[in-house]
Amino acid sequence: MNLEIERRFRVRDAGWRALAEGEWLKQGYLSVDPQRTVRVRVKGEQAWLTLKSLITEVARHEFEYPIPCRDADAILAAMCPFVVEKRRYRIEHAGLTWEVDEFFGANAGLVLAEVELASEDQPYQRPDWLGDEVTHDPRYTNSYLSEHPWPSWPDNQPAGEENR
Amino acid sequence: MNLEIERRFRVRDAGWRALAEGEWLKQGYLSVDPQRTVRVRVKGEQAWLTLKSLITEVARHEFEYPIPCRDADAILAAMCPFVVEKRRYRIEHAGLTWEVDEFFGANAGLVLAEVELASEDQPYQRPDWLGDEVTHDPRYTNSYLSEHPWPSWPDNQPAGEENR
Repeated sequence: MNLEIERRFRVRDAGWRALAEGEWLKQGYLSVDPQRTVRVRVKGEQAWLTLKSLITEVARHEFEYPIPCRDADAILAAMCPFVVEKRRYRIEHAGLTWEVDEFFGANAGLVLAEVELASEDQPYQRPDWLGDEVTHDPRYTNSYLSEHPWPSWPDNQPAGEENR
Repeated sequence: MNLEIERRFRVRDAGWRALAEGEWLKQGYLSVDPQRTVRVRVKGEQAWLTLKSLITEVARHEFEYPIPCRDADAILAAMCPFVVEKRRYRIEHAGLTWEVDEFFGANAGLVLAEVELASEDQPYQRPDWLGDEVTHDPRYTNSYLSEHPWPSWPDNQPAGEENR
């Protein structure tokens, strides 16, 4: 078991893009309940089954097990109604590793940055391209995004009557 | 991936009890959705994480992975609101292995028998102690029983007004 302490942000601009190569991730969920999230993830020729349980909005218990890629593909196809596809860029900045996720598929257009910390109050230095923090907005979890793609959120709809 | 083809029954009497030793199982669920059941099971010093997906009431896809026992205990405690505790007896009869599950805890009093078959229409010989088939009643799945213990079912309530 690991304790995962993570803060999550939007990005302000594309300044992160030239800083890393990026690798392709595809993942789906067997449970999106925040107390018992069950994720299957494929990255290249590797795959994992991951269980996460919310402790606070910043901290989670995490259990992760490698599984055969052919199992993961079959589980994604047969048991995961919604999948998330993204490219992940790992960027070192001031002693910490930032993971920038560029979403594709149903969530195309969304870019999020995450940093893993040793404690909830560990200080960190903001890269120039970092935007607003969204750690406390549960809609920005990948499990929520799998079922409720970002472009469909009310905030992201074209202007309504009042702006016409 | 395995294809699991199973038929499930009540038992008629205790004729099964002298036929095997039995071993203790404790299991909990991270998802009870029949299309994507996620189970953690502990048996003695071994533990597994198992994913099942309903194909028909008799057939299921199944993926099973061994995990460390200390992980399983932590997952049961932190992420599984409902658990099933039972003793399982494996009984050979006419070339097939019957598993008789005697439930304890919230489901105390319930005994079920299961047989795994190679195909949905494989013939099988009924042991004397076997009762009615319940394969097609989804309430008799362990995942349903974990949340809705058998003694609480309306069928099992004391007689109502009409019988007074």
